[in-house]
Amino acid sequence: MNNKKIVLAFSGGLDTSFCVIYLKEELGYEVHSVVVNTGGFDAEEIKIIEEKAYALGVASHTTIDETDDYYNDSVKYLIFGNVLKNATYPLSVSAERVCQATAIANYAKKIGAQAVAHGSTGAGNDQVRFDMIFNILVPNVEIITPIRDLKLSREEEIAFLQKHGVEINAEKAKYSINKGLWGTSVGGKETLTSHQYLPEEAWPTPITKSTSETIEITFEKGEPVALNGKKLKPTEVIQQLQDMAQPFGIGRDIHVGDTIIGIKGRVGFEAAGPIILVKAHHTLEKHTLTKWQLSWKEQLASFYGNYLHEGQFHDPVMRDMEAFLSSTQQTVSGKVIVELHPHRFVVIGIESEHDLMSNKFGSYGEMNNAWTGEDVKGFSKIFGNQVMIWHKVNNQDQE
Amino acid sequence: MNNKKIVLAFSGGLDTSFCVIYLKEELGYEVHSVVVNTGGFDAEEIKIIEEKAYALGVASHTTIDETDDYYNDSVKYLIFGNVLKNATYPLSVSAERVCQATAIANYAKKIGAQAVAHGSTGAGNDQVRFDMIFNILVPNVEIITPIRDLKLSREEEIAFLQKHGVEINAEKAKYSINKGLWGTSVGGKETLTSHQYLPEEAWPTPITKSTSETIEITFEKGEPVALNGKKLKPTEVIQQLQDMAQPFGIGRDIHVGDTIIGIKGRVGFEAAGPIILVKAHHTLEKHTLTKWQLSWKEQLASFYGNYLHEGQFHDPVMRDMEAFLSSTQQTVSGKVIVELHPHRFVVIGIESEHDLMSNKFGSYGEMNNAWTGEDVKGFSKIFGNQVMIWHKVNNQDQE
Amino acid sequence: MNNKKIVLAFSGGLDTSFCVIYLKEELGYEVHSVVVNTGGFDAEEIKIIEEKAYALGVASHTTIDETDDYYNDSVKYLIFGNVLKNATYPLSVSAERVCQATAIANYAKKIGAQAVAHGSTGAGNDQVRFDMIFNILVPNVEIITPIRDLKLSREEEIAFLQKHGVEINAEKAKYSINKGLWGTSVGGKETLTSHQYLPEEAWPTPITKSTSETIEITFEKGEPVALNGKKLKPTEVIQQLQDMAQPFGIGRDIHVGDTIIGIKGRVGFEAAGPIILVKAHHTLEKHTLTKWQLSWKEQLASFYGNYLHEGQFHDPVMRDMEAFLSSTQQTVSGKVIVELHPHRFVVIGIESEHDLMSNKFGSYGEMNNAWTGEDVKGFSKIFGNQVMIWHKVNNQDQE
Amino acid sequence: MNNKKIVLAFSGGLDTSFCVIYLKEELGYEVHSVVVNTGGFDAEEIKIIEEKAYALGVASHTTIDETDDYYNDSVKYLIFGNVLKNATYPLSVSAERVCQATAIANYAKKIGAQAVAHGSTGAGNDQVRFDMIFNILVPNVEIITPIRDLKLSREEEIAFLQKHGVEINAEKAKYSINKGLWGTSVGGKETLTSHQYLPEEAWPTPITKSTSETIEITFEKGEPVALNGKKLKPTEVIQQLQDMAQPFGIGRDIHVGDTIIGIKGRVGFEAAGPIILVKAHHTLEKHTLTKWQLSWKEQLASFYGNYLHEGQFHDPVMRDMEAFLSSTQQTVSGKVIVELHPHRFVVIGIESEHDLMSNKFGSYGEMNNAWTGEDVKGFSKIFGNQVMIWHKVNNQDQE
Repeated sequence: MNNKKIVLAFSGGLDTSFCVIYLKEELGYEVHSVVVNTGGFDAEEIKIIEEKAYALGVASHTTIDETDDYYNDSVKYLIFGNVLKNATYPLSVSAERVCQATAIANYAKKIGAQAVAHGSTGAGNDQVRFDMIFNILVPNVEIITPIRDLKLSREEEIAFLQKHGVEINAEKAKYSINKGLWGTSVGGKETLTSHQYLPEEAWPTPITKSTSETIEITFEKGEPVALNGKKLKPTEVIQQLQDMAQPFGIGRDIHVGDTIIGIKGRVGFEAAGPIILVKAHHTLEKHTLTKWQLSWKEQLASFYGNYLHEGQFHDPVMRDMEAFLSSTQQTVSGKVIVELHPHRFVVIGIESEHDLMSNKFGSYGEMNNAWTGEDVKGFSKIFGNQVMIWHKVNNQDQE
Repeated sequence: MNNKKIVLAFSGGLDTSFCVIYLKEELGYEVHSVVVNTGGFDAEEIKIIEEKAYALGVASHTTIDETDDYYNDSVKYLIFGNVLKNATYPLSVSAERVCQATAIANYAKKIGAQAVAHGSTGAGNDQVRFDMIFNILVPNVEIITPIRDLKLSREEEIAFLQKHGVEINAEKAKYSINKGLWGTSVGGKETLTSHQYLPEEAWPTPITKSTSETIEITFEKGEPVALNGKKLKPTEVIQQLQDMAQPFGIGRDIHVGDTIIGIKGRVGFEAAGPIILVKAHHTLEKHTLTKWQLSWKEQLASFYGNYLHEGQFHDPVMRDMEAFLSSTQQTVSGKVIVELHPHRFVVIGIESEHDLMSNKFGSYGEMNNAWTGEDVKGFSKIFGNQVMIWHKVNNQDQE
Repeated sequence: MNNKKIVLAFSGGLDTSFCVIYLKEELGYEVHSVVVNTGGFDAEEIKIIEEKAYALGVASHTTIDETDDYYNDSVKYLIFGNVLKNATYPLSVSAERVCQATAIANYAKKIGAQAVAHGSTGAGNDQVRFDMIFNILVPNVEIITPIRDLKLSREEEIAFLQKHGVEINAEKAKYSINKGLWGTSVGGKETLTSHQYLPEEAWPTPITKSTSETIEITFEKGEPVALNGKKLKPTEVIQQLQDMAQPFGIGRDIHVGDTIIGIKGRVGFEAAGPIILVKAHHTLEKHTLTKWQLSWKEQLASFYGNYLHEGQFHDPVMRDMEAFLSSTQQTVSGKVIVELHPHRFVVIGIESEHDLMSNKFGSYGEMNNAWTGEDVKGFSKIFGNQVMIWHKVNNQDQE
Repeated sequence: MNNKKIVLAFSGGLDTSFCVIYLKEELGYEVHSVVVNTGGFDAEEIKIIEEKAYALGVASHTTIDETDDYYNDSVKYLIFGNVLKNATYPLSVSAERVCQATAIANYAKKIGAQAVAHGSTGAGNDQVRFDMIFNILVPNVEIITPIRDLKLSREEEIAFLQKHGVEINAEKAKYSINKGLWGTSVGGKETLTSHQYLPEEAWPTPITKSTSETIEITFEKGEPVALNGKKLKPTEVIQQLQDMAQPFGIGRDIHVGDTIIGIKGRVGFEAAGPIILVKAHHTLEKHTLTKWQLSWKEQLASFYGNYLHEGQFHDPVMRDMEAFLSSTQQTVSGKVIVELHPHRFVVIGIESEHDLMSNKFGSYGEMNNAWTGEDVKGFSKIFGNQVMIWHKVNNQDQE
């Protein structure tokens, strides 16, 4: 009798369905399938996945809801850092995979599994995120990746499943969609080229709104805590804002970036909620943070985003950066007014007790009384002193 | 006989008109007015300014056309660096002032002036840029700033001019507009608050286009060299693109930023040409540069933009950064396709010989043959090795 | 009756003695002198300063002992950051002045003073640190700087004091010495040139030790907590280490740096304790932190040191950086063995539970079992993948 | 007849001797051995290596002298950047390996080899540098690594060679030494622990000088061009300085660092020439560069050094950084006076036409006339303006 346990990251699709049968029948594992919900699945979808798992004969199936942890461990810092990779992409999928891999590793440790499996192919980022995080968190647990190792075609996988009595819908979607709390990615056809854009039909959320709406987002120490004056959990602000704004077609774009394995990749995404939140939050910061806080935040957050994208969430330097980012948010509280229009939005302005521009101590004009023209004259002289000397010393022909 | 020469940065407005009379009549200077055109004035406007100067009684008036130098010395690097201050503002005014102050300093040196004057008030950035660049480039030339020193009201200035026989249009524009090659700024009323947006009437260019257009911009080593296939000078690409896209209302926004003197400032701008060029150029770079080139460019360009904004163009570190940026542009050649719509644009894609994503050596799929799943497995292990060790050492309860 | 209160930063030297009389007799202030001890004065010196103050007729004299606060607010982070400005100078004076200015501002607020005064001249860094920190913390309190404003010669100051019945030792020390917890600076004669070194006689601490000693410093979360196995307060570790090592002539050097006002300045210093602590701490970190922790610490600490040097301690970005630095120190605990020799020291090695190099989970050799040659082969391929593609795309003659 | 050609990086030691026989006899290759001299071998050593190669039966043996290229491509920039990894190590071996791997890849291409081989084991950095650079420069050439793949013991290698009629000195050196232009590394015994230092006998150069010497190094645009007034090639300055200073025992230390494969490594080194040159060059820069040049150089050079260490020399970002570094060196010309003592050296001072501290336009004192106390007062006010406002807005109890 064999009772080697394996934990499988299961999605209900062809690849991970193949994995269940293969791990069980060919490798003799007791398969424990897990789906980690990071806010992309509703109750109905979760139930369908569970039914599929049991129909395939798993020993157990578990749904781990990581939505809140995902927000607290990653998304929060992506907001604090105004992270848009290459000035474009909110890292929707990257952050989610890290969260999922971590939850699966912890689950494998909890049930004492001898192995973990994921259904990634050998072409993308996810394999590295899963492999690496498993190596880091459960280094003694074996990693098995049937899809990457066997390199079977879609047809071969279907044939294998049929051989084992499993019928699966053989029709392949035109675009591959990945939905999570922090945005939905869309890949296929046009994104495989460098010069084409996705057609209207490719976007998961059709455009159904055509007039404009004005909304108000409230931040407290950098976190979104209310929408149109209604107090909500941050994850709820994200989800409701997404539901409100995505039907405008806001936040659609294509990201071109460096995969962890060194090739360039291109992917479409729609992420109205994340994009609006990042821009609104950034505007609030421009009013409330000092020049060097803004500058250093930008630099650290850029690295933070890139390194998270590469799956390196568990490097302690990420905790150090989070400590920095959290410290910067102490005064980032206030309201941001945003206008939604078809395909675009406008940040109208902000209101904050911590606004360094206009505050109860005096208006912009009065603040001016704090210094004189003479002060600025002196400032300009000293501020340019070193460069003046440099030019004197090095441009000897000068006078 | 008094022949102390002073060079005055002249715009034809109330403040610098006051300066002409004041410098001449009260301080006894021979006033040489100069207007530096950085692409914001057309021939007609230049002629009007010249007529105003002579009407005020200047000893000489000179127009210095710096449009090409402005592009070559600053704007080019703002494109290379994809510089949008705080992810928003193309630094339209900042870069222009530096160019103007430099041209005036060099002109003062050339004609052997004893003094230079500018019409800045004590509240903004421009005074620092002018003061400092004059201090740096012509440290022995006295700087006179009548407006800042006398702190006269608009009415007092008008009265003074009338007393000297000069009638000037006393009507104040509702919004203060500054137009240059790299964008037009719009300040006033709403921008003095934190929570209001500019109304439609405030924007200099009315929206007159309502359908979409597809355009193609060609870059050669980072510089824009053709529009819709027609070879042009880079300054012409900028100007024609601006004429083409501004009537869509593209590139309007409000920038909130740190002034050099430490207060926060808010200014509207319309800059369709600059914003489209920066985004198009950046997209081309995402396809043609390596990960670390993109990352370091971002970091250096952010400082470059901020420091230029603060008027520190003449610090030699700026030359060092330009050397870096120029080096990165060797492979940034190709075409970018952009779709213009009312209020927004979409970067459709790119075509380039240097595209690292899809190239004549093989498609994305074939490139995949360059490595195996085993390679990635090894990579993931080694890539996460240090963090795995860190967790083993520091989480001793782990297994 | 006049009772305008002024708080004077008092040192007992000629300049601040002049200030007492001048502020009292010429400006009619009630002078409250304050000396802030940051660990550079012993009880005897403090008593002498107090006696001098009362002899000059101050209304009150107060000694504020800031040694512990100085350590907790600044020195601690200079250790965490391994801060040596320009790879040389532990920022001895810079950090101390910030602490003193802050304590004086708070004291002025506490006693409700109308003004504060400092004795800085117009040539150095200290004037900016005092002015700026007073402006920031007590913006409504007037700042008076008699020495800078009056530009009197040494002889004129002495004559003024004599006129008011105060006799002062007129002899000027050959070198100007400033002693504090974090090192002693030495300026004069040779440091005013670029090409000369300080002679033996200039150094405050003569060399009296000629054999070698081995010592052991214990760090706990980055802070020095024991010396040769004896538990001490961090300030005691610093002071005892200084007493132990300075007689070897260790930690003497000349720093050439940028003053806040833009000129270059050169100053000698002896700081055996600080230099040894920084190097020992850094070595411990090399064993216990990850690659990116080391890299980012270096970058942030470099800015932190420079900005502290410029007196900008109260910018909230400094708190953010301290949060980062504190976070990195969680595993920086262990012992460092150091050998002291005349004029130099050698860091022998470290012992730490958090050593990533050699630990209880296995020796260096065993750790090697965690990966195979095949893993590294795969890693090398993927790690160089993008650059390989770049060369293929861009060096078309390659094959 | 078999004529598959393989190029072998050959050193004459046990491992690469084994490789010759193994590649020839077991794998049937025509072996072309190459030794790349980066300044570490003299003519006699080169001759011995050649004789060994032919004795082992190679088809050809080639010595490639890369000393000048090594200087021009790498060492020069390490000087420009004052690169000491972790504030300690001049990257002696790292930079050399990159140069050697590149030369071998180019040689393999030139002779049309089907394969390249190196003798690295699976435990260190060199395997990655060789593998990766071969993958990048000659991606179609197979890489063979017998030592890493076969994992034979020293005894097994010797037995294999004896079986093929080759007798080799079986005695293993106590310390493994690697000598190059930019320093000599020393590994073994104590460096495998964290707490021990290398004993006197381990250092390749015994200490034979006990008095002091004063020397003068001349730099021209950052490059060392003369020693004690005698014009030399930069490589000659390095070598002669090394010969002059190493007998003092200067430049000995232990480096603890992150290997490319994620483990920590410790290695001793002696590098008197490199360390003195870097410190002398850095001092000259402190006198001749602006504050922000020094700051940005530090940041870029730190990355440059780390990335070179990781073998990533061929990433185009390295060319961009070299462009930056070269640009900064335009004014780094002058003389540096250095005093050599047993175990240590002192940088006495510098003389330069570009010295920003003391120059022909006026002494330090006169320069002071360029600004007034009032100027500094104004500067201090404006320089602290934003932080003053921040405290007013956020510490509402303030007054």
